[in-house]
Amino acid sequence: MSQFEPQNPDFAAVVRASFAKQGLRQALGIALIEVAPGRATLEAVADPRLTQQQGFFHGALIGAMLDCAGGYAAYSLMPPGSDVLTTEYKINFVAAAKGERLIARGRVIRPGSRLTIATAEGFCRRDGAEHLCAVLLQTLIQVPLAAEAPL
Amino acid sequence: MSQFEPQNPDFAAVVRASFAKQGLRQALGIALIEVAPGRATLEAVADPRLTQQQGFFHGALIGAMLDCAGGYAAYSLMPPGSDVLTTEYKINFVAAAKGERLIARGRVIRPGSRLTIATAEGFCRRDGAEHLCAVLLQTLIQVPLAAEAPL
Amino acid sequence: MSQFEPQNPDFAAVVRASFAKQGLRQALGIALIEVAPGRATLEAVADPRLTQQQGFFHGALIGAMLDCAGGYAAYSLMPPGSDVLTTEYKINFVAAAKGERLIARGRVIRPGSRLTIATAEGFCRRDGAEHLCAVLLQTLIQVPLAAEAPL
Amino acid sequence: MSQFEPQNPDFAAVVRASFAKQGLRQALGIALIEVAPGRATLEAVADPRLTQQQGFFHGALIGAMLDCAGGYAAYSLMPPGSDVLTTEYKINFVAAAKGERLIARGRVIRPGSRLTIATAEGFCRRDGAEHLCAVLLQTLIQVPLAAEAPL
Repeated sequence: MSQFEPQNPDFAAVVRASFAKQGLRQALGIALIEVAPGRATLEAVADPRLTQQQGFFHGALIGAMLDCAGGYAAYSLMPPGSDVLTTEYKINFVAAAKGERLIARGRVIRPGSRLTIATAEGFCRRDGAEHLCAVLLQTLIQVPLAAEAPL
Repeated sequence: MSQFEPQNPDFAAVVRASFAKQGLRQALGIALIEVAPGRATLEAVADPRLTQQQGFFHGALIGAMLDCAGGYAAYSLMPPGSDVLTTEYKINFVAAAKGERLIARGRVIRPGSRLTIATAEGFCRRDGAEHLCAVLLQTLIQVPLAAEAPL
Repeated sequence: MSQFEPQNPDFAAVVRASFAKQGLRQALGIALIEVAPGRATLEAVADPRLTQQQGFFHGALIGAMLDCAGGYAAYSLMPPGSDVLTTEYKINFVAAAKGERLIARGRVIRPGSRLTIATAEGFCRRDGAEHLCAVLLQTLIQVPLAAEAPL
Repeated sequence: MSQFEPQNPDFAAVVRASFAKQGLRQALGIALIEVAPGRATLEAVADPRLTQQQGFFHGALIGAMLDCAGGYAAYSLMPPGSDVLTTEYKINFVAAAKGERLIARGRVIRPGSRLTIATAEGFCRRDGAEHLCAVLLQTLIQVPLAAEAPL
């Protein structure tokens, strides 16, 4: 039920393969739960490795997951042979990130052949409900596979 | 040679104690190298856990370290009994993050009794020189110790 | 049909009075179209004063209108005797701003007694339809009436 | 004394010609004071048209001027036949913008053949000194002359 048409019929496999190559994902126990055209969802389960000084989910983890969620949402719409890099993002933390589970939902606002604008929301699963904890707004750049430069 | 006067003579110990409590720091091998009034420097050594899909330092790690560097720069100027929370930040990635070492230097732009504005720069140590890879602009809020809410 | 309860029953009058005091509004011909709890809409009609070098709506005007739309959305939820100041915002321009009319719709994401997080979208009215041209993410601070400092 | 080499020997004339075409500049009385490779400075004199509800410089004007200052700093480094568009920016307001004069100084952080990252600072001239009132971080895109799309 997406408003976007993928250019790569294998977009889901391509996104999952890219995610699997990320060393940081393993260090932090982040899982890619769902990929759809222009959308991606990641999750992490509460763990002492993921905390800040008060024991809540660390803002850095939240930033990382929302960045990835928006980035893979963007990547899902890119043509075969391309890679995605984050150019920049901005994140607002809107509530204490307490809960058993952190969920990051990315969504493309506007795809482009050079730049894609995406957004992502972070939710904490707590007491059987999801609570918004962060919002991200982001620019992604489409580059040839293995290209390095974000500019 | 800072332009700022700390309100807490024990600022360095307070910053180091807060940093030591962060679970994420240990998971990622981030070290707090230096604290001065209105300044903080963090470092991480290249490691497979810290990479993105091309083997460079992961943007999420860069975001995390710059967020922490700016946050602790801000915390160094806060009075005894206060804690610091990140309200929001924005980061631009300006070059591929290749190198043996990632260095995050945070600096307060303007301290305030409620909000503090800080900036941080990320550098990759490579071939004997430092190369700018990211810039962050950030808002921190001063809260009572153990307060949770970023708003 | 807002999800937010206003704390000031006169919120609409208070918002309109604040808007009326803005000199810039008159210089640019911006109108406040609608105020609801947690929402505000502004409009401007195309005019040579409002253009950039290609004749489209100027990004600065778009930034101004989205900032105001989010700010007044936030102000609508604040208690009597308070004023609102923008602490920071981030804006992405997602398409060329061509059209007869520029519409800015602000919406509160999360209100707070100190800080409120809001978002706003800019649309160009063109060929009988609205086209998204910009997205803003913003932090507002509640201050006593006539307080000056954004920190 | 810039660290950057202009690609266009006529960069200053090109920047000034672009600025002269902006309708908004005239409506607001903004002047382009200086252009150098990777740098640009704009100024506005206090005027009732430029105020917010408390009589200070309006945040929207500050945003507009810092956006332009960073944008023209970036444009000064682009090759002949190119135009510049703002992709996104983020601004923090760090002090009340009181004064006789508002000065916006833009500076390129990192030029690129596609994207350029710039920063700008806003100062209020007051009581014979300059006071920092805002900081901006921004992404610009280089497009062919007369190209429209920011993505």
